[in-house]
Amino acid sequence: MEPDPAWLPAAAFRAVGSRHTLVRGAGPLVDTVYRELAAACGRFGGSVARGTDGGPCDLVLELGDDADRLGDEGFTCRREDGRTTVSAAGGAGLLYGLFHVVRLGEDAFRGRRPRKTHVPALALRMLDHWDNVAVHPVMGQVERGYAGGSLFWADGRARGELERVRRYGRLLAACGINAVAVNNVNVHETEAHLLTDRIGEVADIAGALRPYGVRTHLSVTFAAPLVLGGLPTADPLDERVRAWWTEATARVYEAIPDFGGYVVKADSEGQPGPFAYGRSHADGANMLAAALAPHGGTVHWRAFVYDHRQDWRDRTTDRARAAYDHFAPLDGEFADNAVLQVKHGPMDFQVREPVSPLIGAMPRTRLAVELQATQEYTGQQRHVCWLGPMWSEVLRFRPDGVPVGGLADALVAVSNVGADPFWTGHPLAQANLYTFGRLAWQPDADPGGILDEWIRLTFGPEPAAGLRAVLEGSWRTYEKYTAPLGVGFMVQPGHHYGPSVDGYEYSPWGTYHFADRDGVGVDRSRATGTGFAGQYPKPWAELYESPETCPDELLLFFHHVSYGHTLHSGKTVIQHIYDTHFEGVEEVEAAREVWASLAGLVDPARHARVAERFEEQLRSAREWRDQVNSYFFRKSGVPDAHGRRIY
Amino acid sequence: MEPDPAWLPAAAFRAVGSRHTLVRGAGPLVDTVYRELAAACGRFGGSVARGTDGGPCDLVLELGDDADRLGDEGFTCRREDGRTTVSAAGGAGLLYGLFHVVRLGEDAFRGRRPRKTHVPALALRMLDHWDNVAVHPVMGQVERGYAGGSLFWADGRARGELERVRRYGRLLAACGINAVAVNNVNVHETEAHLLTDRIGEVADIAGALRPYGVRTHLSVTFAAPLVLGGLPTADPLDERVRAWWTEATARVYEAIPDFGGYVVKADSEGQPGPFAYGRSHADGANMLAAALAPHGGTVHWRAFVYDHRQDWRDRTTDRARAAYDHFAPLDGEFADNAVLQVKHGPMDFQVREPVSPLIGAMPRTRLAVELQATQEYTGQQRHVCWLGPMWSEVLRFRPDGVPVGGLADALVAVSNVGADPFWTGHPLAQANLYTFGRLAWQPDADPGGILDEWIRLTFGPEPAAGLRAVLEGSWRTYEKYTAPLGVGFMVQPGHHYGPSVDGYEYSPWGTYHFADRDGVGVDRSRATGTGFAGQYPKPWAELYESPETCPDELLLFFHHVSYGHTLHSGKTVIQHIYDTHFEGVEEVEAAREVWASLAGLVDPARHARVAERFEEQLRSAREWRDQVNSYFFRKSGVPDAHGRRIY
Repeated sequence: MEPDPAWLPAAAFRAVGSRHTLVRGAGPLVDTVYRELAAACGRFGGSVARGTDGGPCDLVLELGDDADRLGDEGFTCRREDGRTTVSAAGGAGLLYGLFHVVRLGEDAFRGRRPRKTHVPALALRMLDHWDNVAVHPVMGQVERGYAGGSLFWADGRARGELERVRRYGRLLAACGINAVAVNNVNVHETEAHLLTDRIGEVADIAGALRPYGVRTHLSVTFAAPLVLGGLPTADPLDERVRAWWTEATARVYEAIPDFGGYVVKADSEGQPGPFAYGRSHADGANMLAAALAPHGGTVHWRAFVYDHRQDWRDRTTDRARAAYDHFAPLDGEFADNAVLQVKHGPMDFQVREPVSPLIGAMPRTRLAVELQATQEYTGQQRHVCWLGPMWSEVLRFRPDGVPVGGLADALVAVSNVGADPFWTGHPLAQANLYTFGRLAWQPDADPGGILDEWIRLTFGPEPAAGLRAVLEGSWRTYEKYTAPLGVGFMVQPGHHYGPSVDGYEYSPWGTYHFADRDGVGVDRSRATGTGFAGQYPKPWAELYESPETCPDELLLFFHHVSYGHTLHSGKTVIQHIYDTHFEGVEEVEAAREVWASLAGLVDPARHARVAERFEEQLRSAREWRDQVNSYFFRKSGVPDAHGRRIY
Repeated sequence: MEPDPAWLPAAAFRAVGSRHTLVRGAGPLVDTVYRELAAACGRFGGSVARGTDGGPCDLVLELGDDADRLGDEGFTCRREDGRTTVSAAGGAGLLYGLFHVVRLGEDAFRGRRPRKTHVPALALRMLDHWDNVAVHPVMGQVERGYAGGSLFWADGRARGELERVRRYGRLLAACGINAVAVNNVNVHETEAHLLTDRIGEVADIAGALRPYGVRTHLSVTFAAPLVLGGLPTADPLDERVRAWWTEATARVYEAIPDFGGYVVKADSEGQPGPFAYGRSHADGANMLAAALAPHGGTVHWRAFVYDHRQDWRDRTTDRARAAYDHFAPLDGEFADNAVLQVKHGPMDFQVREPVSPLIGAMPRTRLAVELQATQEYTGQQRHVCWLGPMWSEVLRFRPDGVPVGGLADALVAVSNVGADPFWTGHPLAQANLYTFGRLAWQPDADPGGILDEWIRLTFGPEPAAGLRAVLEGSWRTYEKYTAPLGVGFMVQPGHHYGPSVDGYEYSPWGTYHFADRDGVGVDRSRATGTGFAGQYPKPWAELYESPETCPDELLLFFHHVSYGHTLHSGKTVIQHIYDTHFEGVEEVEAAREVWASLAGLVDPARHARVAERFEEQLRSAREWRDQVNSYFFRKSGVPDAHGRRIY
């Protein structure tokens, strides 16, 4: 089966493909621009010329604009005298300019457009694939993957479907993504070898992605000098270790001259790291940075470090504090080409978390903010859950004046893509991938606008209103029928799908809600709790400190309150739980109806796949509703004010 | 590593091995008797002769006693004029007589012994191995196995260690077990073929077990005519199906002339069965019985049939009722060589259940009572849990005058044996295997006496008092720190190890405790509950019907009561929960100390293995204590009367 065209169906190229276009400039990415246009013109009857040809044309795409202002990736676009002109300083900019014109469609060729500059706000817009090369006995081919196997790997070796990888790179370029890490941050035995004797397989992938301006990165194990190099240590200050990394990295660049760099999960959930040698995370990261620096590479060092063998009886330890406690003291100690990669929330990609206080606490450190496109905790691509509004809230949050989107150097998402013909399992989960790319380019963009753009490109105009109705509120719907008021987790242990209110309550993972017969929530105040609220600067520290000022949606993240506590909404906590869980299911029912009404307006295969997933989403949402409501009714004894059925 | 000698160490044969013995009679099992004696004499200096030799001797083992009275397996034993004589009518009886003398040790050769007759109360004393041939992706090599791999199979084929199998048969004979089913009742694809093209592998096992009087049985899939025979149906009344089974069975007997028969799990937990064809379980069982009858074989048809896709919201369905509801109406319809195999309790091998009411409800049906030696729900051979007292209670229970041990034709246990050098993982779990065999021979035997016997044979006299202290109360200790008052489950879903109070509360498995802030337990009364109590005859139906007369240990199995409900013990339910959970852990701590004190009195490898498991048992028991106590404290709000720490 041909993979789904996603947001690049042939029809999206109708406007440019039926015009006369001139491409000026040279280089591999300019060649890509030309090939894209030639293909479109072949389909829609336009023409494309290269060079200095001065004949009449509708569209000019040219290299030669101001490199200082635009960098390699920026471009300008204007329309005057019946001609649309895109100028860039580098091939990547010209490619992004082409896709900009594609997104504009016929609008690109109407009236006048003043010259407008488009430069990505974040230099690195990256997808991390948690793909294993060898099928992991527990985690499978793709850890937390819900879109079939891996695009890159199958059963221990490269899948070899490079045309598919090329198409993937094309989709990524069309939404602004410029980097991919091709393997899981949990680097198992087989995968460790990608760094050395199996780098050729990585180079093949890099070669397929390169024509679309996508650089390839690799997750590596901190223990590589031990497991691959035969050294007796991986101590980052040991000269033999440093020499080993220097040599290994040089060989990587021989194979992949534009290699992006390393991604490292160290001292986290059992992965090896510098702690074993009494060294700091800065020591670890800087060693790799030093090996990469001569080649222009970057190390992404993940800040997801916490005690995953916590005792649930110990209420003083707070996993939410861990990233800040570990890394804030290291601000200023990381090398220039080391990027600290911080999950957007302090816990782990829950449907609702506050923004990680670490993001505002590292002014002298390059930061990557990590989002999760793969829906580990948000319905696993069996539920519709468009994450644009959540991500936008994160990126607009101002820890201390500057928004997160301005503090970060890079935006990273854990990829939701696999070998599935629809790329993402649930066809509507493509919207998350697209939205991620567009927000990484422009973090203050209106997510609703991005959603409309994606809908129009992917589905055309007819079903657009229905699609918007299905997607727009889907994150809040999901939040309604799952864990309430920011408390998180309440999922089945291990696979994390479906409800289990106490599933992580007595576990070593640091993920508790402390519900008893009187109330629920985690006291993270400075005054009486774990002190996590104090990791924020003002005004957030004060706002979160008190249940009176804490936003409703984060109340149980920051406070343990009684079931009778009144929210700002005017409802009690317990009634809020009941109401949102009934509403959430009703909203899924309504969305399913809307989707059903789009039959005939949407490609039948897509329609059938989504319809089938809606059945599961509804079943699961009802299970969430009934388990959460029953759990809290049995504990609180408070009846529903509206007398609805609770078991 | 040589497998552990278990209850047949060389020293156990010292008394017979240092005597002069005469063996009279012929046949393969008499040969086994002779070989056993010859080996013992070779070690301890005695002698053994065969035939009619009339010289002076201490022990005579002879065939020729009254076959009508003794059957093939019975024997008599007497001592007069300084000579001990064992007489039997068949070779099996003589072998059991030899092991009887071995158990007696020096006592067998002292003073006078009046002639005493020993005949097994139950004709069939069987172990069911839930062993897979091919490693199952979820269940592994042995389903619910906690003793390493399978004795019989490894990675898709016969393991081929027939000497190990022979030793296993010898251990079984020495405690009276005479049948083994060699594969899992969940018959997967590979295992289905044991019936036909892979019967040779079963025949090899049968050949290794045969010298010890152990017959081999096979679990088969009801769908065999479809999956192996290529027929379009498995309808038990279809002539083609019946002919297929007749032929297949004849070929089995060509390969294994003394083949025991089939074990079938049908229409249970997803296994195929007669319901698909609108036929009854009697139709299904009788078809197989007809195929086996000409050869003297038996079909064991399991009664473990229930709805495993139950909706937890539905409080009218009660899994406990299922076996009775399905099978009691069929009493009298099963063929003479069909045995209905009933789990001892109505649920699934919990640490405490009432005896299944089905056992008393099938007067015109041959019954096998199924116990579980493998400790699925009783500590998975990481915890010491000697099940003798529980099994003895089951066997002595009188549904309607006659004890269970008298109602049953067969006693079956799910085996706890694997490829582990100690056979059972936890060396002390051997006691369960031994006790099972001895209780199957004599269901009204004192389990404490059996335990002493096992300890003396296995460990000798020195550590006996310590071992008794560790084992004797271990089942009640385990009960104390796990699910209280018969309510069951509260285990981690899937693997069933360790606590998860709500782990099965919102599941489709029919296993609920219904705890809320006011109380806990399942109302199974006729008056207000599921009516399960009414499946018993008097006086049990009345006794179980009321919380006032229901035995404390089953209170929450039969009734939903408030936390303040006073038990016959005088304690409230909630205080009982707290007290037993603190006591249980204290008892584990004490047992661990006793075990530590036995160092030097017990073989070091055994001592180390048990000591290591005690660490895990204690960790796990504390986890059970704290999770169960915290769960009920958070729900009830009732403080511990003694002010102990609850989290």
